[in-house]
Amino acid sequence: MKHVISVRQFEDKKFIEDIFAEAARLKGLSPSEYPKSLQNKVVATLFYEPSTRTRLSFETATLKLGGQVISTENAGETSSNVKGETLEDTIRTINGYADAIVLRHPALGSAELAARYSAVPIVNAGDGGGDHPTQALLDLFTILECKKDVNDLKIGLVGDLMNGRAIHSLAELLGLYKPEIYCIAPPSLQLPANYLDGFRKNAIDFKQLDTWESVIDELDVIYIPRVQKERFDSLEEYEKFRDSFIVNAEAMKRIKKDAIIMSPLPRVTEIAPEIDNDPRAVYFEQARNGLYVRMALLQALFV
Amino acid sequence: MKHVISVRQFEDKKFIEDIFAEAARLKGLSPSEYPKSLQNKVVATLFYEPSTRTRLSFETATLKLGGQVISTENAGETSSNVKGETLEDTIRTINGYADAIVLRHPALGSAELAARYSAVPIVNAGDGGGDHPTQALLDLFTILECKKDVNDLKIGLVGDLMNGRAIHSLAELLGLYKPEIYCIAPPSLQLPANYLDGFRKNAIDFKQLDTWESVIDELDVIYIPRVQKERFDSLEEYEKFRDSFIVNAEAMKRIKKDAIIMSPLPRVTEIAPEIDNDPRAVYFEQARNGLYVRMALLQALFV
Amino acid sequence: MKHVISVRQFEDKKFIEDIFAEAARLKGLSPSEYPKSLQNKVVATLFYEPSTRTRLSFETATLKLGGQVISTENAGETSSNVKGETLEDTIRTINGYADAIVLRHPALGSAELAARYSAVPIVNAGDGGGDHPTQALLDLFTILECKKDVNDLKIGLVGDLMNGRAIHSLAELLGLYKPEIYCIAPPSLQLPANYLDGFRKNAIDFKQLDTWESVIDELDVIYIPRVQKERFDSLEEYEKFRDSFIVNAEAMKRIKKDAIIMSPLPRVTEIAPEIDNDPRAVYFEQARNGLYVRMALLQALFV
Repeated sequence: MKHVISVRQFEDKKFIEDIFAEAARLKGLSPSEYPKSLQNKVVATLFYEPSTRTRLSFETATLKLGGQVISTENAGETSSNVKGETLEDTIRTINGYADAIVLRHPALGSAELAARYSAVPIVNAGDGGGDHPTQALLDLFTILECKKDVNDLKIGLVGDLMNGRAIHSLAELLGLYKPEIYCIAPPSLQLPANYLDGFRKNAIDFKQLDTWESVIDELDVIYIPRVQKERFDSLEEYEKFRDSFIVNAEAMKRIKKDAIIMSPLPRVTEIAPEIDNDPRAVYFEQARNGLYVRMALLQALFV
Repeated sequence: MKHVISVRQFEDKKFIEDIFAEAARLKGLSPSEYPKSLQNKVVATLFYEPSTRTRLSFETATLKLGGQVISTENAGETSSNVKGETLEDTIRTINGYADAIVLRHPALGSAELAARYSAVPIVNAGDGGGDHPTQALLDLFTILECKKDVNDLKIGLVGDLMNGRAIHSLAELLGLYKPEIYCIAPPSLQLPANYLDGFRKNAIDFKQLDTWESVIDELDVIYIPRVQKERFDSLEEYEKFRDSFIVNAEAMKRIKKDAIIMSPLPRVTEIAPEIDNDPRAVYFEQARNGLYVRMALLQALFV
Repeated sequence: MKHVISVRQFEDKKFIEDIFAEAARLKGLSPSEYPKSLQNKVVATLFYEPSTRTRLSFETATLKLGGQVISTENAGETSSNVKGETLEDTIRTINGYADAIVLRHPALGSAELAARYSAVPIVNAGDGGGDHPTQALLDLFTILECKKDVNDLKIGLVGDLMNGRAIHSLAELLGLYKPEIYCIAPPSLQLPANYLDGFRKNAIDFKQLDTWESVIDELDVIYIPRVQKERFDSLEEYEKFRDSFIVNAEAMKRIKKDAIIMSPLPRVTEIAPEIDNDPRAVYFEQARNGLYVRMALLQALFV
């Protein structure tokens, strides 16, 4: 593996399972036991838009493996970018300093572009409406950690399925398994057709619903990203949605005792803080898993 | 000690003296002799408002003790904060990466809130008009370093005593000792009543003055924070104050030969650069002491 | 050497050659072989204006030599600067934490000012229209690496010679050698008189040209900084210039087979990406050389 650009490159379930096995092993170690597998390596986090969570997660992963970090939190405003430098040139320049580049950029396809010009590994930490492969991996890792297997799980994707980058990457990755998928969203925010085609291609059983009433007590996984007001056609539709899909104490009574509630975070109103201490609320553990999955991935880049 | 939130938690003079003894010991070591007591620890500096001095001081303290740093210089603008994430959620997420969180936040009480939700130690690096406990500790450390004892010292707090967070935290900490305190400020900028009540409760001798004429030649410590124009009722009052309380060469002639001039820095017009090389001007040494006090505190969190 | 402020302090060719010999040696090592010559040293990168390239280069240099970094990416907006602190005070405060300070500041002369007040080495990483000594050093290093000698080389400085800090520092450094220099620019953007006087003083053969037609096929080095539209007197003059001096595939046919094309980067329109893979296009290697030259310089500060 040279670069980590898209979940589409993980067609090999074996590769993912190796990454996850290593991530699980790392998670079981105490910090002094981590392998120093990034010793003498410098990882650059090159972020053109803010994402404290993702950036700090990658930086911690690097440091824990003995590597070192150079960082730019706001490359769009504080770099040669403002002087008109192209991304390609910035990448080639940073190639002179860093052994890997973690890139977050608002433009779709920017990670792939960067990879074409980079002599060192590029890790896509989100490229606009495009891919966010490490998010999808940590999501899948968390499902496997909690539920052991993905096959035959009833997985509910709830909310804005139209725009969510995390949802899209996860939908693609789920194609490697045989879950039952419930796409629960208002018609205007349903999963784009190409992902549905992907389900069909992989013979995955899926349903599109605009309410969770009929399935809430059957779902094994509820994955519910942040509700973004500006994505809705009307305030009325937003409010209706917002009030229909709230994972709160009331909803938790109907949800299976061994289900898990997941979110790519941040959450806003769609998950009530009152359920945070419910063992089914795994979203903070899910975020924490990002550290171990990223450690395993960074290691894999330097083998 | 789990968290460092407020000076009010240091009711135990013994604890402070232990911290100071360790800080003094560390100050006497050469960098290669520092204990690697933060080895395999990651400290996050989570700053929602700018404070280069405080942030770099904590980061240096961490690095010198063998720890590692993840940092966000401007969390308010470049994090999930802009997507509507609560501080509680940000804290719980960073709990997944860091072994301690140094928090600077503009909202009063934010450090205490963070501590309620954090599984790892929170160190308050300033929460709005609230507390700035490490500043107060380094101030007290500096007084003790220079004057050996606080009891019976004549300490002048000069300037804006109404709004200064550093002044307030120091006023509380001085309650552990028996100094004579002179609160020297225009009536509209005097120390709030609760701090005066604190002095009374601790039977500390204090006076409120609106000029230093009668005591300038008796003070052992002159603590003079930055004059902030916008804090004054009128331009006239500001100018009068600004011109009345300037520690310059002229004033230094009247100030005791063994007095010390202190400031939480930055200084603006209230301390004239012409006195910087006077041995009584200890404000840069005071800033430097912050490093050692913070090293000792961070160590204490991980014992 | 206490500070690195200006190329004017490198009057001693021997010193430069020692730095370059060490830089070349470091460039030949694998990362695990780098000397840990900055162990237990903390380097502060204090940047009052954005320069991702320069900052990351210094930070990488520090880390690779075993040192540690504290950093502020945007000191002008996120530090005590906004509270009215002078640069002198900021420097003295950071003296309490760091063993060296790499300073980028928009004001001419700021590095020299900082050095007057600093107990630890100041490295000028660009001070306004003033000096950028490490850029000039890496430029000269690159010329020497590619061409072995500077004497008798035909060096073309092309473009905005009036405003370019990099060009000015390089012009001064070239005074140590005996190249033939061609200053190729529109009259309004020619090299300022003091640099021409410097050439005369050093008995350097130079010519001022407003087109490269007569010499393009003779030049050994073409140094062409970014064209900045706002520097030109008129849009017409800008467009004429922009279209006259483009190093593209067409121009490369006329340029000598063993010439080198250099740029301080970023480049905009003056160097066409189509020549990037031409072995004569050395600008990315030039940027990479900055790492090794800065490593050698930082080492020299701590001997």
